[in-house]
Amino acid sequence: MPGLRWTPTTPDHDAMQLLPGLERIVGADHVLADPAVRAGFEVDWTGRWRGVALAVVRPGSVDEVAEVVRLCRGQRVGIVPQGGNTGLVGGGVPRPAYAAAGVARREAIVLSTTRLSGLGAVDEAAGEVVAGAGVTLAALQHHAGSAGLAFGIDFGARDSATVGGMIATNAGGIHVLRHGTMREQLSGIEAVLGDGTIVRRLEAPRKDNTGYHLPSLLAGSEGTLGIVTAARVHLVPRLDHRAVAVLGMAGVGAAVALAARLRRMLPTLEAAELFFDDGLGLVVRHLGGLRPFSEPQPAYLLVEVADVADPEPALVDALAELADGEDAGVLDAAMAADTTARERLWLLREGHGDAIGREGVPHKLDVALPVGRLEAFVERVGGAVTAAAPGARTIVFGHVLDGNLHVNVMGPAADDEGADDAVLWLTLELGGSISAEHGIGIAKVRWLARDRAPGDLAAMRAIKTALDPDGILNPGVLLG
Amino acid sequence: MPGLRWTPTTPDHDAMQLLPGLERIVGADHVLADPAVRAGFEVDWTGRWRGVALAVVRPGSVDEVAEVVRLCRGQRVGIVPQGGNTGLVGGGVPRPAYAAAGVARREAIVLSTTRLSGLGAVDEAAGEVVAGAGVTLAALQHHAGSAGLAFGIDFGARDSATVGGMIATNAGGIHVLRHGTMREQLSGIEAVLGDGTIVRRLEAPRKDNTGYHLPSLLAGSEGTLGIVTAARVHLVPRLDHRAVAVLGMAGVGAAVALAARLRRMLPTLEAAELFFDDGLGLVVRHLGGLRPFSEPQPAYLLVEVADVADPEPALVDALAELADGEDAGVLDAAMAADTTARERLWLLREGHGDAIGREGVPHKLDVALPVGRLEAFVERVGGAVTAAAPGARTIVFGHVLDGNLHVNVMGPAADDEGADDAVLWLTLELGGSISAEHGIGIAKVRWLARDRAPGDLAAMRAIKTALDPDGILNPGVLLG
Repeated sequence: MPGLRWTPTTPDHDAMQLLPGLERIVGADHVLADPAVRAGFEVDWTGRWRGVALAVVRPGSVDEVAEVVRLCRGQRVGIVPQGGNTGLVGGGVPRPAYAAAGVARREAIVLSTTRLSGLGAVDEAAGEVVAGAGVTLAALQHHAGSAGLAFGIDFGARDSATVGGMIATNAGGIHVLRHGTMREQLSGIEAVLGDGTIVRRLEAPRKDNTGYHLPSLLAGSEGTLGIVTAARVHLVPRLDHRAVAVLGMAGVGAAVALAARLRRMLPTLEAAELFFDDGLGLVVRHLGGLRPFSEPQPAYLLVEVADVADPEPALVDALAELADGEDAGVLDAAMAADTTARERLWLLREGHGDAIGREGVPHKLDVALPVGRLEAFVERVGGAVTAAAPGARTIVFGHVLDGNLHVNVMGPAADDEGADDAVLWLTLELGGSISAEHGIGIAKVRWLARDRAPGDLAAMRAIKTALDPDGILNPGVLLG
Repeated sequence: MPGLRWTPTTPDHDAMQLLPGLERIVGADHVLADPAVRAGFEVDWTGRWRGVALAVVRPGSVDEVAEVVRLCRGQRVGIVPQGGNTGLVGGGVPRPAYAAAGVARREAIVLSTTRLSGLGAVDEAAGEVVAGAGVTLAALQHHAGSAGLAFGIDFGARDSATVGGMIATNAGGIHVLRHGTMREQLSGIEAVLGDGTIVRRLEAPRKDNTGYHLPSLLAGSEGTLGIVTAARVHLVPRLDHRAVAVLGMAGVGAAVALAARLRRMLPTLEAAELFFDDGLGLVVRHLGGLRPFSEPQPAYLLVEVADVADPEPALVDALAELADGEDAGVLDAAMAADTTARERLWLLREGHGDAIGREGVPHKLDVALPVGRLEAFVERVGGAVTAAAPGARTIVFGHVLDGNLHVNVMGPAADDEGADDAVLWLTLELGGSISAEHGIGIAKVRWLARDRAPGDLAAMRAIKTALDPDGILNPGVLLG
């Protein structure tokens, strides 16, 4: 990214010298200052975002987090909260340079939430559970499932992504069309604000209108207002009966129209995913995915329904009715009859991230379009990218009813932002959002003002100053 | 309420003299200064909350709202935003006295949003629509229905309550268990903050993570941070097939357990409402409701399922299975076979507010309990009330899976808060929330600090100061 230095810099100070109280607060075992040990926390999994931390600190309680925040505030040391480190916009790893972010010192610590991994007993009547920030999505799903319930969010990084990170980024994923985003799962939160204040409401009933909803404000704030330490989340009924179909579609417009009609016909619709033959080819090549049809299709639509009884007959009926129309654009269809077959179809979509990663380090753009403009975007994005970066490859997939597309660009160097810019300009031209579910992080800071109205930005800055007056929380992220 | 003067006071100033620009901004027809015309805006529908406004101002656009806010800010005049005036905690009508709220002047205007009644075309693919703050819930429901979709919120005051007021109070109602509260319906907002800043994002796609989520922050802020002028809301599939049953239950515990089990068996469950024989008796007496059973029952549970096909067989099967257990506590059951019968059963629950109103001016408390403590609350609340107010009658009903009970106390004078206090103390003792869906308003200001942690209150005050630096928006409401 222009203006950022890509050579990791050595901190000006030794962590113990600058923050002598750290070991007392969290214990010597949980202050990781050795560069070799720190290294895994200083780079994201794409390898594209990296920096240097004074130390990695792993508090074991909300009180320890508050003490660490107060200590850092006293020294004007930045804090980069980190969960499962599955973010894609540089929001959870140290920045290459802090001075530009207006923080007094260049240094920051990484505050890892992995030890905050407590999981309360499931409140079965209310359908809620309290989870520590460090609990992984998979652990939460498993815990809910053991009580005969489920968690409404799911996505590919489930084994690593944590509750805290999912709140900070307002994670979305594949079930948003039925259950909403992470923000909509929250009924209570515990967090430490930038001034060291502990906010806490983990026992409230589901309906609770007693002032500003801090869980919703912290959701999507990307660690810039507070460090989430725990949350009370809603659970949903567990739906053990599923059916999955992949449809070969005549184009994106046909896929959008069919998904929207299917949603009205089947309230059991839980996912509607879009991908294309180039991405499918990578999944076939690298992950052993099986092509669902003998011929390549202009677009692929994967739909899943879930219910308490077998939903396959209803899906078959609905698809038959929808495919019947001349303009429906359904060219072919494959239905999964059992768990293995369902997983095989899902791999075609969920394997995209991994398969693309086998080809190199992609530029990952996560945008959302008005649903009616998805087709125009897909038609134009490849050309927009190659105009900016000749020879670059563009692989697109996403969540069709959310208007959310993941655009992966391969070819340009890590610090060549030309193709990224082309994708984001096209998004704005079509009335879309520059970040659907990954957040702004560092990657899109200079884009925020192009997407959001001046009044919105002024309000956000006022809130940031109110809750993190010294700007020590995730400096440089989101608001720059 | 102790400390508040109940005699409406005469403003110190004439509106035109203090705010000479008002008529220029909104037009002379929309500045209502005549006391007789103002009167309907100065008292809530229970008759319990009232005050005097300098004038009632009805802007016709967001720009006019912003101009009015800036004008009032310059004169330190308070602004009481008002939608359909169906609030129950004094948050939408002028206070008896402003001086106590720390505003320089005692006066405030009422800013009525009723002219902001535009409704955009339904975006059918995205399932969203933009609605002005003054659009009523019924109008929004009708508009969504015309496009083959529905709105996820419903409650008794649907013909008067407005989108703006529903956002300000984060309205709940009878479908929260399936679709969430008003906050969870919002994908974009337009509002004017206390410093006159216009925030606006009405065209964003459903998934949009570009900074702090201002719609969620404004939802439930009770007009103290900004005046909502429009919102983009999610719509849900329209479910035209419904079935309703009323069950006679052995007690609250049995009703809670059955509803929770039913929710897991039927994802189509849309409402689970609780009421008792005393409230039912009032609906029978005043509204012509028909008793569903020959004998009075210890508790009544109304459940509704909604689907794209007839859900009655599934409901019958599920209830038969659940009622079969010895401990199920199902004493009797009545099922509605057609629309008329469904409406007749719903009247028994939805008629409570009206029927109670025919008996006098009730003290209306809206609380939420952990679901597992609903039974203890219901057992104790009547005794707690009569201990504080001998001879008072307590009628309880509510939304069982939300833990949300509406407690109506009849007997005590309007300014006698003894019974109110007893209800709220009991709520806190049982780990509940002092406001489930009505908000804090004026009624519960002194209770907020008993319910919320000091850190939460500090964060809320910091946010209030950040977005309404002069404290002109709904002075005295929520944070006092």
